[in-house]
Amino acid sequence: MSNTTRIWTAIDFDLDGKQADYLRLPYSSNMSAYGWIPIPLICIRNGRGPTILLSAGNHGDEYEGQIALIKLAREISPSQVNGRIIILPSLNYPAVAAGQRVSPIDEGNLNRLFPGKAHGSPTEMLAHYIDDVLFPISDLVIDLHSGGRSLEYLPLALARPGLTPEHQEAVRELLRAFDAPVGVLTDGEGGGGATTLYAAAEQRGIPALTTELGGGATLSPVGLAIAETGVRRVLKHYGIVPDMAVRETNGCRLMRSLGRNAAVYATESGLFQPFAAVGDVVEAGQEAGCIHSYESPLTPPVVLRFPTGGMVSCRRFPTMTARGDCLYNLMTDVGRPL
Amino acid sequence: MSNTTRIWTAIDFDLDGKQADYLRLPYSSNMSAYGWIPIPLICIRNGRGPTILLSAGNHGDEYEGQIALIKLAREISPSQVNGRIIILPSLNYPAVAAGQRVSPIDEGNLNRLFPGKAHGSPTEMLAHYIDDVLFPISDLVIDLHSGGRSLEYLPLALARPGLTPEHQEAVRELLRAFDAPVGVLTDGEGGGGATTLYAAAEQRGIPALTTELGGGATLSPVGLAIAETGVRRVLKHYGIVPDMAVRETNGCRLMRSLGRNAAVYATESGLFQPFAAVGDVVEAGQEAGCIHSYESPLTPPVVLRFPTGGMVSCRRFPTMTARGDCLYNLMTDVGRPL
Amino acid sequence: MSNTTRIWTAIDFDLDGKQADYLRLPYSSNMSAYGWIPIPLICIRNGRGPTILLSAGNHGDEYEGQIALIKLAREISPSQVNGRIIILPSLNYPAVAAGQRVSPIDEGNLNRLFPGKAHGSPTEMLAHYIDDVLFPISDLVIDLHSGGRSLEYLPLALARPGLTPEHQEAVRELLRAFDAPVGVLTDGEGGGGATTLYAAAEQRGIPALTTELGGGATLSPVGLAIAETGVRRVLKHYGIVPDMAVRETNGCRLMRSLGRNAAVYATESGLFQPFAAVGDVVEAGQEAGCIHSYESPLTPPVVLRFPTGGMVSCRRFPTMTARGDCLYNLMTDVGRPL
Amino acid sequence: MSNTTRIWTAIDFDLDGKQADYLRLPYSSNMSAYGWIPIPLICIRNGRGPTILLSAGNHGDEYEGQIALIKLAREISPSQVNGRIIILPSLNYPAVAAGQRVSPIDEGNLNRLFPGKAHGSPTEMLAHYIDDVLFPISDLVIDLHSGGRSLEYLPLALARPGLTPEHQEAVRELLRAFDAPVGVLTDGEGGGGATTLYAAAEQRGIPALTTELGGGATLSPVGLAIAETGVRRVLKHYGIVPDMAVRETNGCRLMRSLGRNAAVYATESGLFQPFAAVGDVVEAGQEAGCIHSYESPLTPPVVLRFPTGGMVSCRRFPTMTARGDCLYNLMTDVGRPL
Amino acid sequence: MSNTTRIWTAIDFDLDGKQADYLRLPYSSNMSAYGWIPIPLICIRNGRGPTILLSAGNHGDEYEGQIALIKLAREISPSQVNGRIIILPSLNYPAVAAGQRVSPIDEGNLNRLFPGKAHGSPTEMLAHYIDDVLFPISDLVIDLHSGGRSLEYLPLALARPGLTPEHQEAVRELLRAFDAPVGVLTDGEGGGGATTLYAAAEQRGIPALTTELGGGATLSPVGLAIAETGVRRVLKHYGIVPDMAVRETNGCRLMRSLGRNAAVYATESGLFQPFAAVGDVVEAGQEAGCIHSYESPLTPPVVLRFPTGGMVSCRRFPTMTARGDCLYNLMTDVGRPL
Amino acid sequence: MSNTTRIWTAIDFDLDGKQADYLRLPYSSNMSAYGWIPIPLICIRNGRGPTILLSAGNHGDEYEGQIALIKLAREISPSQVNGRIIILPSLNYPAVAAGQRVSPIDEGNLNRLFPGKAHGSPTEMLAHYIDDVLFPISDLVIDLHSGGRSLEYLPLALARPGLTPEHQEAVRELLRAFDAPVGVLTDGEGGGGATTLYAAAEQRGIPALTTELGGGATLSPVGLAIAETGVRRVLKHYGIVPDMAVRETNGCRLMRSLGRNAAVYATESGLFQPFAAVGDVVEAGQEAGCIHSYESPLTPPVVLRFPTGGMVSCRRFPTMTARGDCLYNLMTDVGRPL
Repeated sequence: MSNTTRIWTAIDFDLDGKQADYLRLPYSSNMSAYGWIPIPLICIRNGRGPTILLSAGNHGDEYEGQIALIKLAREISPSQVNGRIIILPSLNYPAVAAGQRVSPIDEGNLNRLFPGKAHGSPTEMLAHYIDDVLFPISDLVIDLHSGGRSLEYLPLALARPGLTPEHQEAVRELLRAFDAPVGVLTDGEGGGGATTLYAAAEQRGIPALTTELGGGATLSPVGLAIAETGVRRVLKHYGIVPDMAVRETNGCRLMRSLGRNAAVYATESGLFQPFAAVGDVVEAGQEAGCIHSYESPLTPPVVLRFPTGGMVSCRRFPTMTARGDCLYNLMTDVGRPL
Repeated sequence: MSNTTRIWTAIDFDLDGKQADYLRLPYSSNMSAYGWIPIPLICIRNGRGPTILLSAGNHGDEYEGQIALIKLAREISPSQVNGRIIILPSLNYPAVAAGQRVSPIDEGNLNRLFPGKAHGSPTEMLAHYIDDVLFPISDLVIDLHSGGRSLEYLPLALARPGLTPEHQEAVRELLRAFDAPVGVLTDGEGGGGATTLYAAAEQRGIPALTTELGGGATLSPVGLAIAETGVRRVLKHYGIVPDMAVRETNGCRLMRSLGRNAAVYATESGLFQPFAAVGDVVEAGQEAGCIHSYESPLTPPVVLRFPTGGMVSCRRFPTMTARGDCLYNLMTDVGRPL
Repeated sequence: MSNTTRIWTAIDFDLDGKQADYLRLPYSSNMSAYGWIPIPLICIRNGRGPTILLSAGNHGDEYEGQIALIKLAREISPSQVNGRIIILPSLNYPAVAAGQRVSPIDEGNLNRLFPGKAHGSPTEMLAHYIDDVLFPISDLVIDLHSGGRSLEYLPLALARPGLTPEHQEAVRELLRAFDAPVGVLTDGEGGGGATTLYAAAEQRGIPALTTELGGGATLSPVGLAIAETGVRRVLKHYGIVPDMAVRETNGCRLMRSLGRNAAVYATESGLFQPFAAVGDVVEAGQEAGCIHSYESPLTPPVVLRFPTGGMVSCRRFPTMTARGDCLYNLMTDVGRPL
Repeated sequence: MSNTTRIWTAIDFDLDGKQADYLRLPYSSNMSAYGWIPIPLICIRNGRGPTILLSAGNHGDEYEGQIALIKLAREISPSQVNGRIIILPSLNYPAVAAGQRVSPIDEGNLNRLFPGKAHGSPTEMLAHYIDDVLFPISDLVIDLHSGGRSLEYLPLALARPGLTPEHQEAVRELLRAFDAPVGVLTDGEGGGGATTLYAAAEQRGIPALTTELGGGATLSPVGLAIAETGVRRVLKHYGIVPDMAVRETNGCRLMRSLGRNAAVYATESGLFQPFAAVGDVVEAGQEAGCIHSYESPLTPPVVLRFPTGGMVSCRRFPTMTARGDCLYNLMTDVGRPL
Repeated sequence: MSNTTRIWTAIDFDLDGKQADYLRLPYSSNMSAYGWIPIPLICIRNGRGPTILLSAGNHGDEYEGQIALIKLAREISPSQVNGRIIILPSLNYPAVAAGQRVSPIDEGNLNRLFPGKAHGSPTEMLAHYIDDVLFPISDLVIDLHSGGRSLEYLPLALARPGLTPEHQEAVRELLRAFDAPVGVLTDGEGGGGATTLYAAAEQRGIPALTTELGGGATLSPVGLAIAETGVRRVLKHYGIVPDMAVRETNGCRLMRSLGRNAAVYATESGLFQPFAAVGDVVEAGQEAGCIHSYESPLTPPVVLRFPTGGMVSCRRFPTMTARGDCLYNLMTDVGRPL
Repeated sequence: MSNTTRIWTAIDFDLDGKQADYLRLPYSSNMSAYGWIPIPLICIRNGRGPTILLSAGNHGDEYEGQIALIKLAREISPSQVNGRIIILPSLNYPAVAAGQRVSPIDEGNLNRLFPGKAHGSPTEMLAHYIDDVLFPISDLVIDLHSGGRSLEYLPLALARPGLTPEHQEAVRELLRAFDAPVGVLTDGEGGGGATTLYAAAEQRGIPALTTELGGGATLSPVGLAIAETGVRRVLKHYGIVPDMAVRETNGCRLMRSLGRNAAVYATESGLFQPFAAVGDVVEAGQEAGCIHSYESPLTPPVVLRFPTGGMVSCRRFPTMTARGDCLYNLMTDVGRPL
């Protein structure tokens, strides 16, 4: 089997102007023998300059980035642009349409399937297209995430360390340009590890950034503002939209994630009552919350404690929890010892 | 067919002491020919005094009331009691276990099925038991709700008007005793109308109260505190737990709901960006929010406006919305003209 | 429980002009606590005159009527009207949206649930609203059907006999005004019997007509033309749109259905190869078709024969068949002996 | 709505000879607008004499009765008969075809839905037909059950007490004629109570008997032999097949069921290890079994005890169990004190 | 893992005579630990001569080929044969049994999964067997398709270009022998591309042909006749059944498909009203159809136009459509410029 | 993609003592972005000595091994141990929790997916972990199976032939030490072949044994005793628990399985009535059972015969059967000719 994508689009990435079409992902189903899944795609190109790939909706139930990119796609005109902006505001479209993290077609979690497969499931085909077709023409990658239905996040940007010192510096420059309140360096441990979109971009040497901007499958006004501002600041900083009006930097606090050994996981199933909030600084041994039994209400609750100190980056959002669910992740300032 | 319930319990409601068992709801399934669904039930009885029925988990994804009642059931000892406390902390147990509003067994929304049926679906059988067996032995009814997955609520208590002037006064006394920040009088229009647990209690002349204490299927610490305090204040006020230590009244602002003609409903499907928050006071014609298209991102958003003025009592929680979803409900102070 | 509908609409049926809204069918689900199902509704009213109720999409996968009524709703202006036209082009909206005969919400087949229930399942609530709210304000009822996914029909109109001689004559007048190529009198045996929309209209003494205009869940241009012409001819005939330009009558052949004893049903499951087409005149004992086994291909096919003579009114559309499926229905000219 | 069944059959119950067709249960689905569910039905009639109704497959995963009646239907010729034998070997046909206790179409447990509804769900319509059409023409009713997937039974026959002393004696005569090793008198407590087929037959004054002949959704050779012998003995005893060759009586031990307060129910979910077998005589307080946790294997098992003494009539078959599942039922000899 | 198939059969392909068995595809499920899926297979062999592989039911809802091959398998006797005929009339058997395009077991679309996997999903294992076991013993391959539920096709045969000039000529000879009214050369663009059965046969250098013979999941008598005649003509032409009585050639019009850029795709979801039929010759810019909104009926319909001229080879069959569905494909005579 | 597992555990396999945690299998779902599936794991280590890997619940509905290992894990203390015991009592945990053979998450049959994939589905990831992480640290492997829901087995142990003479002897030593009544040598034909856990262990040169100890998804006391005794005997024999009190050998009869050509498969779908039991010695041509039609009860049953002689090792358990189901497998004494 060839490694050539079967996905196509009516957009010509080499044309100037604003074009809107879809990634046309062939999906031959009972109801549509020759149909395709329409993944919204906007390309705005003008003059010479770098190409930025902007995506949201990688997980379908994360909304700050989707709305920020939809608004951006409407508002920017080609005449403002030096270079090329490729926007995929609702990337895993079947998941977005279902209001779910994963695609209902193949249960595919797009951010766990990179670098994908040319002839795999629909979600694998999509990952492959991004990695194989879009990354080679991109100079910068921003993939906007939020906590989704199961998590609540302190708004922050994240990046991986980079493959080389130059790459590392390019990544940090992108974090500074984006100017989220917090910028987190991570290797993805406890999350998607090497299987994510931005990890695949890193593998190709591209400076890439992701975010976490709220959660609960609702819309955070603060998170939305960070997404809108951050992307605009990046577009200006790299000269892609040189006359973009943006606010000054507020300064981005550089932190690093503490990985799975610093996380709190549910040891029982039941109703989770948290004792700490996102952004709280906690100590090792401090009570993190308790789990009540709805099956046997007179059973005493199970109390959980933080295994180490740090700042809470995210917390489980739903009260209902099952053994193995992540209840808290922690982070700490870069350079600070554990 | 007789109208006699098939539900039973090992608890003897006439015995003193603290008993814990289940409503045993017969459910003859592929996997269990003679089994029953175990709905947790606690009865604490001592001496002579009124009977209060306390329930939560009527909708399975509403948690403040469930945790408040689980904690109460653990903490109260019979020796504190003059009368009887019947506690059902996770009422529609199959819905609770599924983390859903409705039961996965029969898609039953318990709070839309009163007065139920003795030989109906499991959820109808449960409604019938409450109405036919528990209400006749209850002097007071409190059914604790929250917004659940689809709504966010300003924390408040609600009651129906009552059947007679005396009933009306008894209801208001219960609202004052519970002492939520806001107490709302409603006929249930736009919600469950006459099909709810507390409407069925009203039909039997019982003073009954319900609450809305948060939403999003997460846990609101403020809502949890209101539930815990309110129930304890009621237990003391009516002499059921005469020595209960409770805080003083903060005063309960009496309001009335404005019904479906004052509500804002989604006119399109898409991503809902709200412009007002719960508790906001809004004017007629004010922008309420907009709906973005994720299918066709360059399409201008649809802007929605409030049809009348009032205070926002609840708002849709998920960003994803479909035509017909309720986005906002409004309320106003009692006595204030529309 | 009261027998009052919980369905509402923003349309005021007593106002002149063209109004478009929905039947707002309350449906309190996991994703929408206070939402409603939006069933499209158009009301066009002007001056004094009779009220006609026009519906399609009673079964969601039948399309000629839906498109005919959508086009009619767009094209007619109030100034053309003397009286009132109430249009429900996609009546069982959840079924229409799913492309199915029955509603995916409650598996409800609307045309088997009349007269419905005020507090039943969504589909039962809808039947009740039509019967209890719309029929009392309607003078004429036309409910446009086609064969749907499982049947292919010779295009025809159908009516029930009527409750009285006057009612019977009014029904035949409506059939003549509609002017389908064939008009069939039926008591619904082998189909929906007394549980259909037009049978419920008959019970209220309203002249009512239904159609079958194609099938296979595709669009028949011939069927679409009959629907469009028929409705327009009726609107003119009864003076509701007096200046409507319509074609002359082609003459409607009056026939009667022959019921289930004249039908051919599958006696085995397998692949159905028909030997007759809709509109064919067949004799008793004639070969109707055969059923091939896809499981055991070398097994000889089962040959089926017509139990009586007549004209084929409809035939099973899918090749795949199961024991008990209706393969053919027959009809004969009125007055002709069996 | 009329109370007249919509089910029909090509069989004429008043004709002599052996006829085979179906109860034709109209079911208008997405795939078959005018189709019916084919419930196999055999009628063997000759001369004058009583009518016996024989059924199995009331629960779809119980097989001894189904095979016994299929063999009987093949083997008996009309010339042997004085009277009428109506055989429904696979009564809830959709459940039988699915290999399940309940129907996959409407989740209907036929033996919990008597006396049914003429216009209800398919399973309710079936119950109504049996009660409203078949019972009035039946003099004797035998409905053959087994334990099904979730239970293992000591082979036995069961009957309800009867409405009058004469009815009671007629029931005991039927038990003696059937001659199972054990005959149990029961009011159905802990099982289907008044909602079963044989309870509905009792309401009409008909002597009726049911059985439990094995379980686990497999075939018990012993149970099959009891079913075949018992039915043949009854056919001979009542003169319906006067020349039937049958074995002599072995004597039927008359017992009574001890109801739900003598049952053992699972108090936890987990893996059930039983300590007693069907037919064992147990004492109050004796260990009945234990439940191991597969989630937390180091947790000590929960030990369950019999609440009273008696003989084990049935036991849960699957090892996997959930709180509320029935693990054991007990019975005792008639006349023996509790 | 080895690349050896786990599929087996009781048929010995090297024996003379007519053998019927199954491809026995091991499928270890909850209900059958050691069971296999029985894919009907007939082998008719006699003397020396070429081997032809005949298949249908590759997509389960396409019937002309299935019935043609079932009839052929019944009718041909080994004594007529010089060589070997391998017939798989219902190839993706689980899809056939479900009446669907794809297998319900693994959602596998067999004609998108070649060359398959020896240890993949059931559908992948089946593709691998055909490619790895059957193709190496086949000299000719015919895989009979129709439009299925979602498409209506002008009856035609299709072939890929071939790997070499000799292969190309062999393919055209096969097209001429089959003698469909139209023979289309295609590279599969817009359909299955290189992942189809006949593309895999091409990769092995085998002359291979496929068909499209109707659609809508119903049976086209014209399409059935083409299938029966075409296969018989091929069997005679290649000397496999030398005395087969066949009709003379009608002449096959050689065309080529115009690919996805000449196709019309749905730009909106809604109800599709087509303005052209299969076989029509259309011009660039001509109206192809319109899409009506059933959600908002007063919205003007969206009109679609043909992007280029050509003859309509297929059209979407269901009226219900979603954005991305293929509405029309075009073809043109070979040699004619675009 | 790296081949490194993403599964982790809090257990340190190099520490002495009894540790209990889980294989933490990352599963990023709609409800748990960073959660893991908790597969119970116990490690008991002390001193120097061999490592034995003990597993059950590879198929979720097989219970003798699960309960045996749960009890063992509770009872053994580190002080008894010389070496290391790694216990996975409920290996495919999602399947166990569902009471199914295969995982409900990905329909994965763990014992058909070895050697697994580091980045595959959850079940593939689990197979990979066992093969890639646990096998390299194991000296002995015992994977306890039973018949599960679809099979009934004569209690026996099974082993594959081994890669070398030394390996072969080590395998036989393990069989002798386990001392099941019967020990069967097999290459897995008709079952999982080379895709099973113990076949993968064989590939790594480890002496490995599996069992079949009952079936029907119930608990066999005999099978449980064999599991408990066998494992304890092995622990003593290899010096891992040197002071374990065990019974003497009863002698293990060495047999070999006869493969798929000696098996009986269902040739029709229907109700299976077996004529032989597990452990019976049968002759070629002997009647094995018959299949009754529940659809057409008057159709004569299909009689099946054994294709060869041997002893019945297993039999289909459910009465309901479908074409292709395995009804019987046979075995014979080692050395005895066919």
